[in-house]
Amino acid sequence: MQIIEGGVTAAKGFKAAGMAAGIKYKNGKKDMAMVVSDKPCVTAGTFTLNRVFAAPVKWDKDIVANSPFAQAVVVNSGVANACTGVEGDEACALEAKTAGETLGISADAVLLGSTGVIGMQLPMDRMCAGIKALPELLDYTKEAGTLAAEAIMTTDTVKKQWAVETVLDGKKVTIGGIAKGSGMIHINMGTTLSFVTTDAAISSEMLKSALIEAADVSYNMVSVDGDTSTNDTLAIMASGYAGNKEITEKNDDYKTFTAVLTDAFKKVAKKLAKDGEGATKLLICKVDGAKDDKSAKIISKSIICSSLVKAAMFGADANCGRILCAIGYSGAETDVKKIDVSYKSAKGEILVCKDGNGLVFDEDKAKEILLEDEIEILVKLGDGNASAEAYGCDLTYDYVKINGDYRT
Amino acid sequence: MQIIEGGVTAAKGFKAAGMAAGIKYKNGKKDMAMVVSDKPCVTAGTFTLNRVFAAPVKWDKDIVANSPFAQAVVVNSGVANACTGVEGDEACALEAKTAGETLGISADAVLLGSTGVIGMQLPMDRMCAGIKALPELLDYTKEAGTLAAEAIMTTDTVKKQWAVETVLDGKKVTIGGIAKGSGMIHINMGTTLSFVTTDAAISSEMLKSALIEAADVSYNMVSVDGDTSTNDTLAIMASGYAGNKEITEKNDDYKTFTAVLTDAFKKVAKKLAKDGEGATKLLICKVDGAKDDKSAKIISKSIICSSLVKAAMFGADANCGRILCAIGYSGAETDVKKIDVSYKSAKGEILVCKDGNGLVFDEDKAKEILLEDEIEILVKLGDGNASAEAYGCDLTYDYVKINGDYRT
Repeated sequence: MQIIEGGVTAAKGFKAAGMAAGIKYKNGKKDMAMVVSDKPCVTAGTFTLNRVFAAPVKWDKDIVANSPFAQAVVVNSGVANACTGVEGDEACALEAKTAGETLGISADAVLLGSTGVIGMQLPMDRMCAGIKALPELLDYTKEAGTLAAEAIMTTDTVKKQWAVETVLDGKKVTIGGIAKGSGMIHINMGTTLSFVTTDAAISSEMLKSALIEAADVSYNMVSVDGDTSTNDTLAIMASGYAGNKEITEKNDDYKTFTAVLTDAFKKVAKKLAKDGEGATKLLICKVDGAKDDKSAKIISKSIICSSLVKAAMFGADANCGRILCAIGYSGAETDVKKIDVSYKSAKGEILVCKDGNGLVFDEDKAKEILLEDEIEILVKLGDGNASAEAYGCDLTYDYVKINGDYRT
Repeated sequence: MQIIEGGVTAAKGFKAAGMAAGIKYKNGKKDMAMVVSDKPCVTAGTFTLNRVFAAPVKWDKDIVANSPFAQAVVVNSGVANACTGVEGDEACALEAKTAGETLGISADAVLLGSTGVIGMQLPMDRMCAGIKALPELLDYTKEAGTLAAEAIMTTDTVKKQWAVETVLDGKKVTIGGIAKGSGMIHINMGTTLSFVTTDAAISSEMLKSALIEAADVSYNMVSVDGDTSTNDTLAIMASGYAGNKEITEKNDDYKTFTAVLTDAFKKVAKKLAKDGEGATKLLICKVDGAKDDKSAKIISKSIICSSLVKAAMFGADANCGRILCAIGYSGAETDVKKIDVSYKSAKGEILVCKDGNGLVFDEDKAKEILLEDEIEILVKLGDGNASAEAYGCDLTYDYVKINGDYRT
């Protein structure tokens, strides 16, 4: 796998655009993005498990399940179109109809995404004007992809885009994507909005399987604040332009494609966590020696979600009690008397708990390690051979500031 | 039921003491408490569900399960004696032995409690000196009870004690207690340390049943930060001094006793939540119209635990999307299209969501309501007749401050 420049326009035949359409009317920032493929794409998606899901999630689920292909994505930031009732569903239908007419494709080939304030209706006049204006801006360049990445940001402080190349069946295959997410990020699915494009040739069934496999150890292992969003959408469109032999079974090409996707998604997961609302540090919790995969995941997620652990990391406090506490209430079965805990960063590694007992350790060394901006929390259980990795961030004054006054 | 002055010494035959024994050696604050009954007491307890539980929890569980009676409680703050291995268990045995010898009672009649830093051993020389010094300070007065309430505080900003009177079988019965708790407070049991005394005559089985019933809708419905402590202990000792006919079955006296206990515990739960680390507001989430009790509890707890809801309340932001989001990911079955949400305080009530749709409402009025320090979040579901109430607090800069640098 080769990391390359660019994002959602890196794969062959995809163009994108981003613009300010007045949805975030107060600040004039970019708030609408469009991604269009030159030809219909095999499409797969995975969505929030929140029972309260936004209208565009409902729309996309239907497209992914029932449309043979998708060819375009329309996304807005500023308003989430969640908790908007029948009017919200009608807004989606109108968005897709308008995009379809303007692009000359069927409305059921248009994926939608919205992110922003929940419980507010979309300003449909501005939305439709944006949808009609975007096609003229569409371009195959890196820069166009970047505009799309910027247009879907809300409280994100950095745009998230990525692209990778690999070889399948002797053909160069490219995958790229854009993502947004900073708050209301939790583990029950592809956290917030992510749209991925690839020129790989792959069947619908295999694309879905690869997406789920990759998301499960990446997007589904990120938590910023424990709140599973109403709008989470992770969708992938595959055009087949690369000309590789179509992947229709779990052969070596499938494995390569899935491994590349997984690796890329893990990098995105870390970006999402590091740019978590108010965050100053990326936290990576690695659990080894668990009884089974499920226990390893439960424990790593429990630690990464603990408010007390997150606040301790903000303060660079090598507290081991809070780690053990979070393991204890996680619900996973584990032998407490066999737990070792270390902290690790670019400045070194320090053991703070051995066999379930807190150790007296060098506080200065621990402080030095924890003052870095990427911290690994290493947990070694003595229960078996399973392992897992979860991604999170510290809990800071700025998280409170951002969320204490989000709408005003 | 009559609320009266006092706390753990209010019921007949209980004396208490509190002192600075040097456990919190850095600040010289009170850190040890003792409560002693004139006669052996029927005792019941309920404890943290955290798999990582402190040595004194293990000790008390054994006493409650296997000792016929208890007669004294020894509590320290500053060090939690959790994640302390065999040395921690030995510390408990020595504490109880020392207390038993000094008080002239059996070691297995001594309940223990510890709260403070996890993963650190108790300074046993100071602990034992304290245990030997406390009996001379024991007194039946209100003031002595207050000293005990103060000695078990950690990050608490107010001491928690309470007492109530009722009449059972024509006899005046008194119940009183002390409690501590501010952080690492979550719903899986009698949050942090609480010791309750009563002069009621009641069988062991009925006392246990009343305790569980009362805790289930009070202590078990409080969350400050989602972290279930390693040291949670709620124990009750009943001396029988009131002279009422012993309660041995679920008769009217049992119902009265349980109702009084429940009401008192709910008041304590609110106190714990209001004094949550860094909190500026008490949040009470009332859910009505749920399909069943379980759903009502799950939904009310999910809302009270949401970091985003808590931060919005700190900012007096009448965000309804975060409430609906928390309902949606709670796991409870509910019809989203039938959900109404209002905020209520001393300044009035405002509807922000009707039938699952966000409303346009008077923002100034909402702000006025939410600037109060006790906020009710009222959720009306359209699924049935069950209801529940959960208690929490806002998420503030001070929570981060307190927990970013707890140990130093």
